[in-house]
Amino acid sequence: MINNNSTSRRDFVKGVGAGVLTIGASSFATSVMATKAKPDKLGIALVGLGNYATNQLAPALTVADNAYLAGIVTGTPAKANIWADKYALDDSHIYNYDNFDKIITDKGIDIVYVVLPNSMHKEFVIRAAKAGKHVITEKPMGLTAVECEEMIAACEKAGVQLSVGYRLQFEPNTLEIEKAAKELPLGPINYVRSEFSFTIGNPKQWRLKKELSGGGPIMDIGIYCIQAARYTTGLEPIAVRAVEYKTDYEKFSSVEETVMWQMEFPGGLYSNHTTSYSMKANELFVSYQKGNARLEPAYSYANVGGHIGERQLMPHQVNQQALQMDNFVECIRQNKTSKVSGKEGLQDMKIVDAIYKSIANGGKRVEV
Amino acid sequence: MINNNSTSRRDFVKGVGAGVLTIGASSFATSVMATKAKPDKLGIALVGLGNYATNQLAPALTVADNAYLAGIVTGTPAKANIWADKYALDDSHIYNYDNFDKIITDKGIDIVYVVLPNSMHKEFVIRAAKAGKHVITEKPMGLTAVECEEMIAACEKAGVQLSVGYRLQFEPNTLEIEKAAKELPLGPINYVRSEFSFTIGNPKQWRLKKELSGGGPIMDIGIYCIQAARYTTGLEPIAVRAVEYKTDYEKFSSVEETVMWQMEFPGGLYSNHTTSYSMKANELFVSYQKGNARLEPAYSYANVGGHIGERQLMPHQVNQQALQMDNFVECIRQNKTSKVSGKEGLQDMKIVDAIYKSIANGGKRVEV
Repeated sequence: MINNNSTSRRDFVKGVGAGVLTIGASSFATSVMATKAKPDKLGIALVGLGNYATNQLAPALTVADNAYLAGIVTGTPAKANIWADKYALDDSHIYNYDNFDKIITDKGIDIVYVVLPNSMHKEFVIRAAKAGKHVITEKPMGLTAVECEEMIAACEKAGVQLSVGYRLQFEPNTLEIEKAAKELPLGPINYVRSEFSFTIGNPKQWRLKKELSGGGPIMDIGIYCIQAARYTTGLEPIAVRAVEYKTDYEKFSSVEETVMWQMEFPGGLYSNHTTSYSMKANELFVSYQKGNARLEPAYSYANVGGHIGERQLMPHQVNQQALQMDNFVECIRQNKTSKVSGKEGLQDMKIVDAIYKSIANGGKRVEV
Repeated sequence: MINNNSTSRRDFVKGVGAGVLTIGASSFATSVMATKAKPDKLGIALVGLGNYATNQLAPALTVADNAYLAGIVTGTPAKANIWADKYALDDSHIYNYDNFDKIITDKGIDIVYVVLPNSMHKEFVIRAAKAGKHVITEKPMGLTAVECEEMIAACEKAGVQLSVGYRLQFEPNTLEIEKAAKELPLGPINYVRSEFSFTIGNPKQWRLKKELSGGGPIMDIGIYCIQAARYTTGLEPIAVRAVEYKTDYEKFSSVEETVMWQMEFPGGLYSNHTTSYSMKANELFVSYQKGNARLEPAYSYANVGGHIGERQLMPHQVNQQALQMDNFVECIRQNKTSKVSGKEGLQDMKIVDAIYKSIANGGKRVEV
């Protein structure tokens, strides 16, 4: 499955790995960005080597303080080769979906990070938990709230921590918005509006297949707006109303194209949202009694910035995913529940469930 | 009704008016901002001397090129005195609501501008038309589309022009957005979002009394968002969905507090909107295929600005109301229909009617 050249190279890197560690990662060849043995860090195995794992999580693990890329789980042998070379991974930490459960005996892997299509989150979170590994899953946590409950139960039973990949809850400007929900420097919040949309490319991708994604933009990017309305207000919505709009019935034959929805919060606070695979928007707007706040972009991997009232929130040059994974390791070490635990993911999926119920009922009010 | 002092002062100003005109308005005392005889301009009578007439329209008429304040119609004698002094108005051009119809013989008045509470627009537009005067009415044009049709018919029958006070359709940056609908420099439009909300003060004002206002923020400020979605796209909505939200049932016992609504345009384009008397927002956002545009503030009397794609739209220092009234005079002179004619107001009220119907039906889709 792995060609000789790349195997040799990997073996070579493995051979010098321990020595190199003593002088730091910077002495590695540029194509080799990590190594297997990092006694001061926890080892993470990424499950699913798609775009997000490749271009965000793996690079983040080269700069994280508390975690490093210790293994991979992939169904594509060619990818395994490339990754093994690039990140100096030992064969013993490379799995496929069939032999994944053997990870139970792999002492190099502390955390499994599930980056698979949505429909596979539940299965692999539960399998990881049964293998005794702490788990991070990408959002949406599952396809439904019921799935999330099963995942939480499995992790509790196994005594492992479960977290959702809500990277923005560690982004400094997002934290300012979150802090404003508690300190209310501009008075009470009376409105939240948020939109996250992009123009989707390849019509054959898994996001457009309901059996893999579980749904359209609401599951994928709309969930950021749900998160945002919650951390912006510090409140949980009590009801939603949602409508689906479609313009391209062929491309979006399986999932929604655009969803617009509103959420009602306790005490008479309402939010308004749009998410779509056919437009571009990336924004969080908050109306406080004495002024407004805005983040734009609000949800990107970099450059999240804006203002709270007159105060500018200049973008911070941070690696959101590194901060998120480092925090999870801290939680594991301190036996503390993550702020983005499974319960956080479950709450969002309860809201998504209500949104789908409202869509199915022509936009009627549905309690969460 | 008018005390001796102010009458005397007004008479004095009248006496010198003709002479002063030859050397220009700047030689007037600062408290006297206009005079009655301006042969090169059309004379406008303001009907209703509330905040908008006092602080926007009357000052605009001191800087307009084609129109000047020639008369007033008010139910408050004390206001008549103050205005007569300030704007050097002759008694013969001052009316109350009872004797208003005598304006038919007043050759000094070419245009009647109705700035009354919404419920009185229809009556005074029709009375003005019957008096042979061209008419401008503030928005909303009427309480319903049916009212607007009656107003249009009355003006057509009388052979006078009818216009709605849509000042923004003459604001330079708004015109850039309108131009982009035709020229599509950033490709087709795939989304419009707009919000206009403010925190309403005095709970006893007419805006909060349905018998005077006809409704809440959708009639008052939400209509700007309807206008904006139309001029931003150059399209007419085919259907709407709307929901009303309330938090203060006492203050908003008569009209809505917050309305969120969506509009569907031909060819699969959707817009999303919020208007409220309990929050602050003032924004127009457009997603084009190759970029976004934003105006913020989008609807203020001054400082409308933002960007289209990378191009900044710096605020223009213009008097929107002066531009609007000047344009109406041009239309009258050239016997040309105004871009903000009664039909424009009627179209918005058809949409407002549909919004109210949707609200009454729990947010169901209602065709316009």
